[in-house]
Formats: sequence, structure tokens, C-alpha cells
Amino acid sequence: MTMNKPLEQAMHNFSFARGLPAPLPRFVGMPRYNFVGGHNDPDRIPVDDLADAAARALRTHARQLAIYNLGTGPLGFEDLRDGIALRLRGRGMNVDRERVLVTSGSGQGLDLVNAALVEPGDTVILEEFTYSGALSKARRLGARIAGAPLDSRGLDVYRLGQMLDEMTRQGVRPKYIYTIPTVQNPTGSILPAERRHRLVELARHYRVPIFEDECYAELGFAAETPPALAALAPESVIHIGSLSKTLAPAIRLGYVVAEPAVLNQLVALKNDGGTGAIDQMVAAEYLATGYPGHVDDLIAALRRKLAVMTEAIEREFGTTVDIVRPEGGIFVWLRFPADFDVRRLIGPAAARGVVFNPGPEWACDPERAKNLMRLCFALPGEDDIRAGVAELAAACHEVAGFPQRSANVARSVQP
Amino acid sequence: MTMNKPLEQAMHNFSFARGLPAPLPRFVGMPRYNFVGGHNDPDRIPVDDLADAAARALRTHARQLAIYNLGTGPLGFEDLRDGIALRLRGRGMNVDRERVLVTSGSGQGLDLVNAALVEPGDTVILEEFTYSGALSKARRLGARIAGAPLDSRGLDVYRLGQMLDEMTRQGVRPKYIYTIPTVQNPTGSILPAERRHRLVELARHYRVPIFEDECYAELGFAAETPPALAALAPESVIHIGSLSKTLAPAIRLGYVVAEPAVLNQLVALKNDGGTGAIDQMVAAEYLATGYPGHVDDLIAALRRKLAVMTEAIEREFGTTVDIVRPEGGIFVWLRFPADFDVRRLIGPAAARGVVFNPGPEWACDPERAKNLMRLCFALPGEDDIRAGVAELAAACHEVAGFPQRSANVARSVQP
Repeated sequence: MTMNKPLEQAMHNFSFARGLPAPLPRFVGMPRYNFVGGHNDPDRIPVDDLADAAARALRTHARQLAIYNLGTGPLGFEDLRDGIALRLRGRGMNVDRERVLVTSGSGQGLDLVNAALVEPGDTVILEEFTYSGALSKARRLGARIAGAPLDSRGLDVYRLGQMLDEMTRQGVRPKYIYTIPTVQNPTGSILPAERRHRLVELARHYRVPIFEDECYAELGFAAETPPALAALAPESVIHIGSLSKTLAPAIRLGYVVAEPAVLNQLVALKNDGGTGAIDQMVAAEYLATGYPGHVDDLIAALRRKLAVMTEAIEREFGTTVDIVRPEGGIFVWLRFPADFDVRRLIGPAAARGVVFNPGPEWACDPERAKNLMRLCFALPGEDDIRAGVAELAAACHEVAGFPQRSANVARSVQP
Repeated sequence: MTMNKPLEQAMHNFSFARGLPAPLPRFVGMPRYNFVGGHNDPDRIPVDDLADAAARALRTHARQLAIYNLGTGPLGFEDLRDGIALRLRGRGMNVDRERVLVTSGSGQGLDLVNAALVEPGDTVILEEFTYSGALSKARRLGARIAGAPLDSRGLDVYRLGQMLDEMTRQGVRPKYIYTIPTVQNPTGSILPAERRHRLVELARHYRVPIFEDECYAELGFAAETPPALAALAPESVIHIGSLSKTLAPAIRLGYVVAEPAVLNQLVALKNDGGTGAIDQMVAAEYLATGYPGHVDDLIAALRRKLAVMTEAIEREFGTTVDIVRPEGGIFVWLRFPADFDVRRLIGPAAARGVVFNPGPEWACDPERAKNLMRLCFALPGEDDIRAGVAELAAACHEVAGFPQRSANVARSVQP
């Protein structure tokens, strides 16, 4: 028995499972012009208020940290569930803490709902352009994904009805209709009230639950937004949301609201020992104090950044790209000429420090989204937005010959 | 098309996947005498120090909350990884922050390692009595579980060698040997140094990685504990640990240490948007300040509670149960008469407010652990330990006729 194999050989001890995602390379820092992801504006983080909230919350509740789930059960910290329920009443939902499950980000909500409902081969309906995480999670589970058409006002409920009718005729009953009705990701639309009513009628008629994602719902630019789908049909909707977009994404706090029979099933699947308790305590304390004013300030800041972003795109790209103007949120959706594939820009843009979301990653049918692009604007400062868009245009010129190069350069140095 | 189905019918919208765990009933509060779970002592939570640490950490770092993973990459908050690496050097491990992946509790570490290595039908070796979470996760993945024998000093490495030899002859190569060498769960042993050396030799020879869980390693009662297995054979060991047992379980912070090739694969599987950032910030700040003295105080408090617990068991149960005296940690392992099944006590004990861990839930072969029981002592106060053990003995008397009833009652009222 040889006991001293060299270390190089010993590494072969690890025999990985099949079908894993590619290993992640070592992190080497953030790109210079970061137009991807749900990052927020560091200048809008209420630093002192959060520090004060943290100290107050811990002095009051830290003893509870000794007990899993703070001793208040697997739904999460009671004060946070109260705070979330209060916000949801602003979305028209008549809920209390017993209907709110705190999750470790809304991504965990997606995972739990998928685990509860979806088996390989099941059909799920998603909006034709939608959150890439919802797409990748459904694909990983082996679901068949049907894309429901969107127009400038959101889900095209008439054509969705035709889809459901056709599926019924074929004996297919989808496990859910996943929709982001309030600040749609990536198109930024807000579904009008009459379409919301029609959508819940369809869900009831075809007995297909709605899986409503309201991550961005508090970031609408107008004074009023129509009530959540869960307000119209609580028995037919699983509703998820997040504090990531209005407070901070590194605070991993989302929530699921559903009927008790559904919630009890989700809780049984959430075997993570609870969601981070200090995150929960600080958020609860802040929701009860500075949060409402903070969201108003954040929306004002996002509107200014959106204006800078759209001005920069118009200046740099002229009429070669269409901007889908969002009704809220943190991103714009761009349409390049129909024959152009934005994925050709990935390398050249990265070489100039620019990263963006290619449309195919946000689409049920990637090939139909080749000429589409999502640009997020909450994180970079205004000067970086201008400079980054100029670099993106320069990369595009290199690759595609448009937009005009000389104009860009001249304009980008004197914004 | 009828659009107004009654709500009761609409509930049938939700068609759950097959094979789900049973829904969890509504939480109705903690049991009176709680001897289960990794809860800690509320009196030992450093409330003011944590509140101060939180305020300092947020004033310094809160702007980073605007960015996923705090802008420091998916391994976790750099200051926390530094703090964990420093503690691990105390376990003999020569690591820096680049080798440390912060996880949302060590349970997520178990999930990630299982996801990276284990496919249905694979064999894994666990200690014959072990952490129920490690067992249930491996079972859920469809792994074949082989139980390696323990004795009073931990893993019986001689018999483990025989097992590996036999498996090799049968063409079976286990995916890992999961072991809790330092304060074994549930038996409380600390594996001697010479066995550790023999264990890593076996791992190298048979090219089976060790999956080392050191959740309780800092809670040894002796002044010194032998180095971690990962210190002896970093290339052959995946090491996980947690702050739950030494700081607080509701703070969901664990970690994985592994070779870069393994760590990069685990990171690619950790698609949770990061671990709760305020938990990470507060823990990092506290690790760098009050933590070392805190752990010393906690160990002293746990030793006192263990003494109260063993005295109570001896007083209430006399010679009818054997106590396996732990060398550290937060639980005792009890042996009831060989023909007694502790599961018979679950209902009667619960009726008296007492919950405990039945041996079968902590055993590779549940039937061989019928007469075994784990009692955790960190959470309840000393009076509750005494009263709860008396209630447990009374329940046992009801069910089994032992121990003597009259003695218990008389003694339990005047501890």
C-alpha cells in the first residue's frame, strides 16, 4: 500500500458530477462601465440611517439571534413580515404577516415556486422577453417554455387567451403564467388595470395560476400604479417581490405571498435554516422609519439617470437604435437594426470596459431577440453613463460601421 | 366561457409536483423544554458589542450594499473571508481569503458540495451516527450511504480502511468521506491526531476526498485540539464550517475551504445572488474585535450547562441510561436500554413540553440507533434543563416503567 502519492495526483480525488455549469473564473473586479444587473446607486444608500437602524434593531432583538429563525418560525422575522405586509397593502393586497414568507432574495422565491410546481416536461408560460433568471431556472428544471407576446403596454392578454385556448385543446395545462406586470423586465411597461382584470379572468377560467413578480413595482415613475394581480385574485396568484431594487441588492431579502396551502408547501421546501437574520432586522427597522422617503428620493434619482442615459444613447447612436422608454425601474431596452446581432458587440465592448445584457439572454426565443439589448443605469454615475454609452457606440462602429464614428468622438468628450 | 368560478374551485389551480415533502403546519411557538437543534444561549449573545459592530460596519461599508456581492465577487465579503481565514490558521490551515467561500450557513456548503460531486446511485461514506442534515441531503440526492464505525474517540480508521478496501474490490469509489472530527455530532468526540494522519493517508491512497465538517471545532473543552484534516491534506479535503455555533445560528454564515479547482466549481453552483451582506459585515467587524474573548466565555457557559444537564440526567434516570460525555459542543448523546425505542417517547414527551432528537434520525442505519437520543443544552436555562429532564424522565416512566417515578417527582421539585 503506497501512502505517499504526489499531491498532483491526489487532486484527481474529486470526481465531479456530470452536467455541471462551467467553473467560475477568479473574480477580477467590476467592469469600468457596468450596464448589467440589478445593482443600485451607491450614492442613494442611506448609510447613516441604516447604521442607526442596525444599532437600534440589534439592541432590541439580538438575543433572538441565539435561536434559529429568531424563534419566530420559518416564515421569517415578524417585524419584517409586518413591514412587508404594510407595503403590500399599498399594492392593494389585503395581507398580514401570516401570508408573507421572507426569502433570501426573490431568486429563492423563484426556486421554491419552481420546486413546488414544476417537473421536467411541464409547460410554463413566460413573457416573450423576461428576467433571465426566471428563464434559466425554468430551463434548468427541464420545463417547456412558451413565450407570451408583449406589446408596449405589457402582456398581450388577447393573444395569451388564444395561447391558453390552443393549449387546452392540446391537453396541455401550464404550471404557471410568470409575469412582471409592474415595470416589466426588460421592457419597462406597466400593465394597465383593464388588462390585469382580463389576465386574472384567464387564470381563473383556464385554472392556470399566475406567478407575479413585482421586484420593481415600487419604482414606477407615475404617481399611481394599478393594483397587483394578487390584489385582484389572491386565490390564483403567487406573488413575489424583493427589497433589492428599492433598498439594496446585497441585502438578500425577498418575499413570497400566497394562499396558506401554497405557503405551507413552500416553507417545507425552504430548508436553509432561515434567511440572514441581521439583514432581516435592519430592513424591518428601516422599513418602519426612513424607507418611504428613501424610495421617493431613489425614484427621482433614477429618473435623472434615465434622462442622462437616453440623451447619451440619442447623441451617440442617433436614429440607429430605438429606445423603449420605461415607465419605471432601472433599465432601458434598445432595438438595434433588425439584421444586427448584439452578441457581436460583447467582446469589443468589454475591451472598452463596457458590459451590457444581450437580448437573447432575456428572451424565450433567443433568436428573435438578437437585435435587442438591455442597459441598466442605476449603478454608474452620470459621467460614466455618458462615457460608457460613447464607448459602446465606438465598439459598435468598429463592428458594424454604425453609428458614425467621428460624431461620437467629438460629442463624447464634451457631453 | 364562464369567468366567475367560485374561489374554492380556483384553489385547484395549483397542481403540485410529485414527491414533495409534507407541507409545514403553521408555526405555533417554541416548545417549553427545547433540547433539539443548534440553538445557542440567548444570555451569551454579545448584544451591545454586536450593535456597536453593526453601526461601525455599516458606516464604513454600507455604500457597497448597492452592488451585488458588495462588488467583491461571489466568494463573499473580503473582510469576513479575512476573518475566517485567520480563525482557520488557528486550526492549522494555511489559507487566505482566496480559498474561502462564504455560504449561507454550512447547510448551503453541504448542498453545494453534494451538487458538485454526487449523482443518484453514487456511494458516500458518512459516520455511522452523524448530523441529520448531512444524512437527509445525501438521501434526497439518491446517494447510497455507507456508515463508517465510530468508537469513543471518533472514526474507527482501521475499520474504515477495511471498508474502503472492500469497496475497491467491488469497484465502488465513494464520492466522499463525510466526517465531523472535532466535536463529533452527535457523540461529542474529538478525533486524536494519529487517527487524523491515518485518515488522510486512507483518503490519498484510495483517492476518496474527505468532506470535513468543523461546525463545532472552536467549542472543544480542552485547551488544545488537533489540527483540522484540511491542515494535513489540503489537496484531499473539502472543509466546511460555520459561525452558527460560536456566534449565533440565526446569523446565516458558513464557509467552504477547498482547492481552487473545487472552489470555482462550487461558486458556479451558488446562484443565490450572494449571502446576506449585513450579516457578513457585522460578523466581519465582530470577528476582528470581540469574538475571541466571546468564544472563551461561551465555552465556560456551555461547560456549566453540560454539568447541569449530566447531573439532571443522572439524578432523574439513575443507571438506566448511559451518558456519552462530549469533549466539547452543545449536546449529549444518551444510550437507553438496548430493547427500548426512544421514538415511543416523542408524543408523551411533547405533551410535557419536551422535544429531543431520536437517535434514528442521526444514524446511517436508523434501526441500530433506536435506543439512542441526542439532547442539546445550549438554549435552555439551567432551571429549564433540570425541569425538562425531569419531565422527560416522567414521560419515560409512563411509557416504559423506568426510571422510578416517585424518586423523580420528589427530586425535580427541589433541584
